Amino acid sequence: MHLEEKQLSSEVKYEGPIFTITHDTVQLENGKSSIRDVLLHNGGVCVIPVTDDNEIYMVKQFRYPFRTVTVEVPAGKLEKGEDHGECGKRELLEETGCVCSEYTYLGEMYPTPAYNSEITHMYLARGLKFEKQSLDEGEFLDVIKVPLTEAIEMVMNGEIKDGKTQLVILKAARILGI
Amino acid sequence: MHLEEKQLSSEVKYEGPIFTITHDTVQLENGKSSIRDVLLHNGGVCVIPVTDDNEIYMVKQFRYPFRTVTVEVPAGKLEKGEDHGECGKRELLEETGCVCSEYTYLGEMYPTPAYNSEITHMYLARGLKFEKQSLDEGEFLDVIKVPLTEAIEMVMNGEIKDGKTQLVILKAARILGI
Repeated sequence: MHLEEKQLSSEVKYEGPIFTITHDTVQLENGKSSIRDVLLHNGGVCVIPVTDDNEIYMVKQFRYPFRTVTVEVPAGKLEKGEDHGECGKRELLEETGCVCSEYTYLGEMYPTPAYNSEITHMYLARGLKFEKQSLDEGEFLDVIKVPLTEAIEMVMNGEIKDGKTQLVILKAARILGI
Repeated sequence: MHLEEKQLSSEVKYEGPIFTITHDTVQLENGKSSIRDVLLHNGGVCVIPVTDDNEIYMVKQFRYPFRTVTVEVPAGKLEKGEDHGECGKRELLEETGCVCSEYTYLGEMYPTPAYNSEITHMYLARGLKFEKQSLDEGEFLDVIKVPLTEAIEMVMNGEIKDGKTQLVILKAARILGI
């Protein structure tokens, strides 16, 4: 079929706590073969929590691949088969201490579809109420509150680097007419 | 230092044509140790080509990790040390046959900063002129032209899944006031 690639073989190269790496051979539409290395991932979820005053909560945390602290919306990875909506609410509560009365699905993104099966699900949380932050053992982060208008600036001027965070800020801005 | 994680050890687990996988042990700020598996990647670039009539060119291609055809802006991966601006122009030409007279940097995104060192650089291309598409051997894709307003709809209704594509469409829309 046009564009389609057929799997000819597959070999697991690495299995770790977060992802598995496979090395596959595929047949292209011209009959030739090619290599497809893939990172298999259970997927993730992120939530943009917007207050009644149109401020958003984000977290600052160390991201080891870049040896730097990033600013991101609350997020987490899914266990195999886990409901992404429930996971998003749990991460929101754990990381920021918030629960919400309105919870809107903003769709999914494929962060790096060329070589990674991760799907990140996105939610908008409104009607926020504070309970109590409860980070996982070994999880360290600082919560910040930023007006949505300022967060949009931080996306447009390059201050916010994380892909899902940039995307949910611009999606929420469009939905809220900001 | 607050939030920082210090590398204690690092081991290469897999080296492939697109990425390398390392398995590191780090020290957290509470003195305890943790595991950080990281995918090392040279980075990528994507370009949103917008015509004088505010239409954009995108490509449909098979993405093996999802066994599906996605709609994405022209993009490619960098060779180590390669200039991302030049790489973006080359990918634009190869995939769509376009050259451009205006080329604006839209910043970088970290697609999955928890476990992946990839940085995707983003560009807006205007003043388009057609030369000739010249795909790499073994590269198959179809070019489509869509009004930017329709592309925004495709982002908001979930039809476009690719993260970088969703993001550059919303960034370009904001810059162009659409």
